[in-house]
Amino acid sequence: MAGKREEKRKTLRAALIKAAVAQVTAGGSTALRARDLAKEAGCALGAIYYMFDDLDDLMFHVRAAIFLETVDWITTQITDAQPKDPMEHLLLLARAYHQYADENRNKWRAVFGSDNPGELAPKWYVDSLNQLMGQVAAPLKQLKPEAPADEIMLVARILFAGVHGLVMLNSQQKQQGSRVEAMQITFKTLIEAQVNHLISNNNSK
Amino acid sequence: MAGKREEKRKTLRAALIKAAVAQVTAGGSTALRARDLAKEAGCALGAIYYMFDDLDDLMFHVRAAIFLETVDWITTQITDAQPKDPMEHLLLLARAYHQYADENRNKWRAVFGSDNPGELAPKWYVDSLNQLMGQVAAPLKQLKPEAPADEIMLVARILFAGVHGLVMLNSQQKQQGSRVEAMQITFKTLIEAQVNHLISNNNSK
Repeated sequence: MAGKREEKRKTLRAALIKAAVAQVTAGGSTALRARDLAKEAGCALGAIYYMFDDLDDLMFHVRAAIFLETVDWITTQITDAQPKDPMEHLLLLARAYHQYADENRNKWRAVFGSDNPGELAPKWYVDSLNQLMGQVAAPLKQLKPEAPADEIMLVARILFAGVHGLVMLNSQQKQQGSRVEAMQITFKTLIEAQVNHLISNNNSK
Repeated sequence: MAGKREEKRKTLRAALIKAAVAQVTAGGSTALRARDLAKEAGCALGAIYYMFDDLDDLMFHVRAAIFLETVDWITTQITDAQPKDPMEHLLLLARAYHQYADENRNKWRAVFGSDNPGELAPKWYVDSLNQLMGQVAAPLKQLKPEAPADEIMLVARILFAGVHGLVMLNSQQKQQGSRVEAMQITFKTLIEAQVNHLISNNNSK
């Protein structure tokens, strides 16, 4: 019986997260409404607070779900494109991130927006975000196999931050016309500079 | 009479923006309440909608006011620190931006957060944001006086985006301990790589 109850619990939990992801996708992270979620998942309002500490806690699970989807989508893009070398791989990652953000604005904001209460993020959530850094680190390692892990992670972090910041700036200046080509040149400059710097750096600490 | 009325209008407009900045500073950009603003500024609720198209329009004026304050504050930091060369100047800009974001979280989010409805931003607002790029461009120009303006602006944009992205990542991972020194090393790596790339790039387009 306990096993069955546990299973039921898990199913309801997943249904609530799924309904919440749909709400956020449609209306942004401020659109979360407990009453609508309960209705959608077919449970009592109180069940939400039995499953999650509060709506903030649920929101972190929503972000984690969206984040996994993002990583999956980007991975598929890279696999499909079959980059011929690590530099092209890095460029494709930047473009895929940009495209995802453009096509999934509300989801992107929910996960990567500066509006999310970062200070309060649980450790499991922050750790999961670091998965994306691993994706950036892989081609960097190919470019400089002898580099220590922390040097690679530093550059991965810079590249992710740079691409994210550029996508953010671009979304604020959208009205000034499409900037896909301009963005590609910008990504290329960012990446080339950091990669050259990484490769030429011999005094690895 | 018209002059006096116009002056009164301007005073009330400024009072409303000031009250709104205070609300956003205290509670973030979702804290804006028209009723409280009217009370604070000593006007009728309807006057707000006479002065501004709607609360979104008012919010852009709030952001612009905060943004000017940010630029002023960063400029003062640089003037006080008297950087000995353009590289130190760029590093100081990065640190000042980081410090401002850390100490003025709600204001920073209101202006630079991905949560703001960038697509709808009026042109005057987007143009004013570009002032910060000018601050970054100045030391870059000193480093490569012969570079065309668009090459300088490209690198300025990358540096701003990179620093912003790193500050955003850092705010999400705050709980993992203070990272001021780590951030300085990261800023330095970002800036050195881009500056070296800029200086060594001879085929300026």
